[in-house]
Amino acid sequence: MKIAIAQLNYHIGNFESNKEKMISAIANAKKQRADLVIFAELAISGYPPRDFLEFDDFIDRCWNATEQIAQACVDIAAVVGLPTRNATKPGKRLYNSAAFLYEGKIADLIHKSLLPTYDIFDEYRYFEPNRDFHCVDFKGKRLAISVCEDIWNLGVEDLYPIKPMDELIKENPDVIINIAASPFHYEQSIRRKTIMKANVDRYHLPLFYANHVGAQTELIFDGGSLAYNEKGELIGELNYFEEDLQIFDLADLPKALEEKKRTDKIALIHDALVLGVKNYFQKLGFERAVLGLSGGIDSAVTMVIAAKALGAENVHAVLLPSHYSSDHSITDAEYLAKKLGSPYEIIPIKSIFERIEKQLEPQFKGLSFGIAEENIQARIRGVLLMALSNKFGYILLNTSNKSEAAVGYGTLYGDMNGGLSVLGDVYKVDVFELARYINRQQEIIPWNTIQKAPSAELRPNQKDSDSLPDYEILDAILYQYIEKRKGPHEIVAMGYEETVVNRVLKLVNTSEYKRHQAPPILRVSTKAFGQGRRMPIVAKYLC
Amino acid sequence: MKIAIAQLNYHIGNFESNKEKMISAIANAKKQRADLVIFAELAISGYPPRDFLEFDDFIDRCWNATEQIAQACVDIAAVVGLPTRNATKPGKRLYNSAAFLYEGKIADLIHKSLLPTYDIFDEYRYFEPNRDFHCVDFKGKRLAISVCEDIWNLGVEDLYPIKPMDELIKENPDVIINIAASPFHYEQSIRRKTIMKANVDRYHLPLFYANHVGAQTELIFDGGSLAYNEKGELIGELNYFEEDLQIFDLADLPKALEEKKRTDKIALIHDALVLGVKNYFQKLGFERAVLGLSGGIDSAVTMVIAAKALGAENVHAVLLPSHYSSDHSITDAEYLAKKLGSPYEIIPIKSIFERIEKQLEPQFKGLSFGIAEENIQARIRGVLLMALSNKFGYILLNTSNKSEAAVGYGTLYGDMNGGLSVLGDVYKVDVFELARYINRQQEIIPWNTIQKAPSAELRPNQKDSDSLPDYEILDAILYQYIEKRKGPHEIVAMGYEETVVNRVLKLVNTSEYKRHQAPPILRVSTKAFGQGRRMPIVAKYLC
Repeated sequence: MKIAIAQLNYHIGNFESNKEKMISAIANAKKQRADLVIFAELAISGYPPRDFLEFDDFIDRCWNATEQIAQACVDIAAVVGLPTRNATKPGKRLYNSAAFLYEGKIADLIHKSLLPTYDIFDEYRYFEPNRDFHCVDFKGKRLAISVCEDIWNLGVEDLYPIKPMDELIKENPDVIINIAASPFHYEQSIRRKTIMKANVDRYHLPLFYANHVGAQTELIFDGGSLAYNEKGELIGELNYFEEDLQIFDLADLPKALEEKKRTDKIALIHDALVLGVKNYFQKLGFERAVLGLSGGIDSAVTMVIAAKALGAENVHAVLLPSHYSSDHSITDAEYLAKKLGSPYEIIPIKSIFERIEKQLEPQFKGLSFGIAEENIQARIRGVLLMALSNKFGYILLNTSNKSEAAVGYGTLYGDMNGGLSVLGDVYKVDVFELARYINRQQEIIPWNTIQKAPSAELRPNQKDSDSLPDYEILDAILYQYIEKRKGPHEIVAMGYEETVVNRVLKLVNTSEYKRHQAPPILRVSTKAFGQGRRMPIVAKYLC
Repeated sequence: MKIAIAQLNYHIGNFESNKEKMISAIANAKKQRADLVIFAELAISGYPPRDFLEFDDFIDRCWNATEQIAQACVDIAAVVGLPTRNATKPGKRLYNSAAFLYEGKIADLIHKSLLPTYDIFDEYRYFEPNRDFHCVDFKGKRLAISVCEDIWNLGVEDLYPIKPMDELIKENPDVIINIAASPFHYEQSIRRKTIMKANVDRYHLPLFYANHVGAQTELIFDGGSLAYNEKGELIGELNYFEEDLQIFDLADLPKALEEKKRTDKIALIHDALVLGVKNYFQKLGFERAVLGLSGGIDSAVTMVIAAKALGAENVHAVLLPSHYSSDHSITDAEYLAKKLGSPYEIIPIKSIFERIEKQLEPQFKGLSFGIAEENIQARIRGVLLMALSNKFGYILLNTSNKSEAAVGYGTLYGDMNGGLSVLGDVYKVDVFELARYINRQQEIIPWNTIQKAPSAELRPNQKDSDSLPDYEILDAILYQYIEKRKGPHEIVAMGYEETVVNRVLKLVNTSEYKRHQAPPILRVSTKAFGQGRRMPIVAKYLC
């Protein structure tokens, strides 16, 4: 039996496009004499469909699209993920299912048992857990088909009372098939391989694993679908960050493969972000981006990533100097735009700032320059960038990094604007690393941008270090608090100064109101701001 | 045995304040010779604590605060909600528990079995469901103690495979005690009574139900805690929208009570919004609000609600006329501010608009006035309002309504700005009803504001009806789509024009990116925008 793993980039709710892609992959697999093609979890709808799942109309369309794909499965079978109705009560209305398509119809349904409901996952919001287990017989082989999390309940987490494969193994299957939606973070491909290998080691069966590829707003799927022989040797590893289809002959499995070592955190983040930006625009039907290019490192790295994703000619840089912009800000920004070959323009904001000051004179008279005036400058830039976005159909890219987003070092409705935050899950220290990675062969981002002290340039001689601890310290504390959920005592015990720790945690917790209104952030870490981190706004904890 | 129901307004994460309140309620109950005081679900932490629950430090503080409250329970017992650790694996790390406090210590723990994970609820994200059931014996009575949802699995929803009270009843308890966190929407108090009565009818026991009161960002708890005798007669109904404590003698339960008929949707919404605004400011430690007063109905209603919540003197109205503002906009807005006795000022935006146009001339030359120019006006207002907010420590109130939020009829970083959206869960037709309710005894909002055709006044002679269907039609379609999750075919089958339905649903689905960056919205309906409605941004469904 020949099994094809089809790793595709789906579009949520776009049934026509998803269906066409899958039918075309089936045709392709058939041409290569495959007996079975496996697609990803909830491939029909795209992942995550979120509350679209609450609409009967949406569920009907999923079923109809699956039936149409089934018609393409005549001399070939397919495993396809979709939501299906749970007809029995009590229980949630839906199952997260794998459909086995054969002989032109939906021949069998296998439902998911373990429903991840943590971080960015909300599956128990929608789905009833399956409690009945069965394998599928096909061409003399018995297939143990499962959906994603159902084979992840091995190892340290141990969240669920059952292991679905322990049930399926009782029927003596010949092969494990798992369809998944396993989003990227920079440690995920290693975790994935560890879990897959642990399954083969436990059940002694070959395993075929189909993942999504492509970005869905903030979630980036890196692909990297996998195949193992029954000895636990890796025999197939599909491409990362692009669509792929590979075929494996059960009767003649290939030799152990040299693993694609995708372990360089910075290179992984870089590739993920490029795909994230690219798919965001493609799937929304936009081609061109605009961003404010300040001469600083965050906007420079954002610009390079956008240029790689969209083509440099489609990324419009706008330099928006104020009273307090230094000369090198303009020259560094211009250097980068020219180097990339991107269009750019300069729109000074000074006269607008003065006009606004004038209008606010009755209210502000006698009060000294402060945060309000700093924010006015950032917000004028926001107005101008959005004017260009509205007029010319650009999407504004947000250039904030994770350190700033964490401590609220940014202006709401100003530099926090944008349709998508490119670097919002990348700490400042890693933004520097990304810049060096981009420059690894030649200077693209001016070295001056990388070397100068970070500054918002909203008042004379301002430096980030006036208001914040050094980024090495800040980011280390933030990582312990955000990614590792360590409390103040634990972080102090690691050797950080208590006053600094308390100040940082307070800044994080009192900035929730800002992050609530931030753009979606491309997720590259185990804990990104956004849907995977849900905090009260009105609260008094560590602040 | 005398049972006190303590209905308090908690502050999330503010253990000191929550603890003090509860200790003081215990002292009060003791003075009135109560034997037992019952507090709400997760009272110790406030509800919902959300991802604070992932911090060991937070869980420790919950436990410590509960132990301190236990020390106040010497000649009296208490039932208190808190998160506790689940020591056994496999499983989630926590339980959602009711602690029984007596003789100075935490004498028993009862864990919640049914974990609501829908709409605004995320409980399975954090908690392991309980599978062991036991009653608590106290002073010769056997108490069946449960947490919120555990007694809601009666009736049509039928989401869960078990009914915890069916297990507890086997131990022959004498009384049902339920501690809850049941947030307000305008039909909730009726549902709550129906469910409570259904429990008494099924188990034939008196029932005491303690709810939260007070707002937690977008969620408003209306209180209305309940007591029933074993015949299913309502014998106690605590106040709505304020703290309360009532005591019931099991040996001498009062006669059936006349129900507080809180069924007037508009009056309920009004009271809920006033509490929502009040608590948002109080719990964040702010006193003063600012808002843009346009002369239109949304900002007028928002202003009146804010004045009731904060005191008229603490609500600063800003009139921000543009080229296109009509004379009545100014006079209507001034009338309202004067009528309320609120401070107001006028800051014309024309000269700023012209200055921005001038700066954008190189880019915009030869292009005609359009959405970009409309949005610039809205964003200038946003800049000015935020400047005042930043300078004087006001919180900006957002004045958008649910109809606008639904179809994206608003400017991101412009009139969509604000710390809190007051009317974002109120359809335009209900905003009109709220205005009439406010004016029921005398004209507070000028009748002209209520009667004139709604307009954004961002271009000459603009009317909302130029771009949108009449609000009666629009809101009816939106209600079916948003609250009822009906699809296009179902809505058309109700008699709405197909092209209008398709256009409206498309507007809703293509505006997700705007709502993603909107302020938190006070929730008053069964389906509000925000954390209870989770939609993909990049998707292609009905659009």
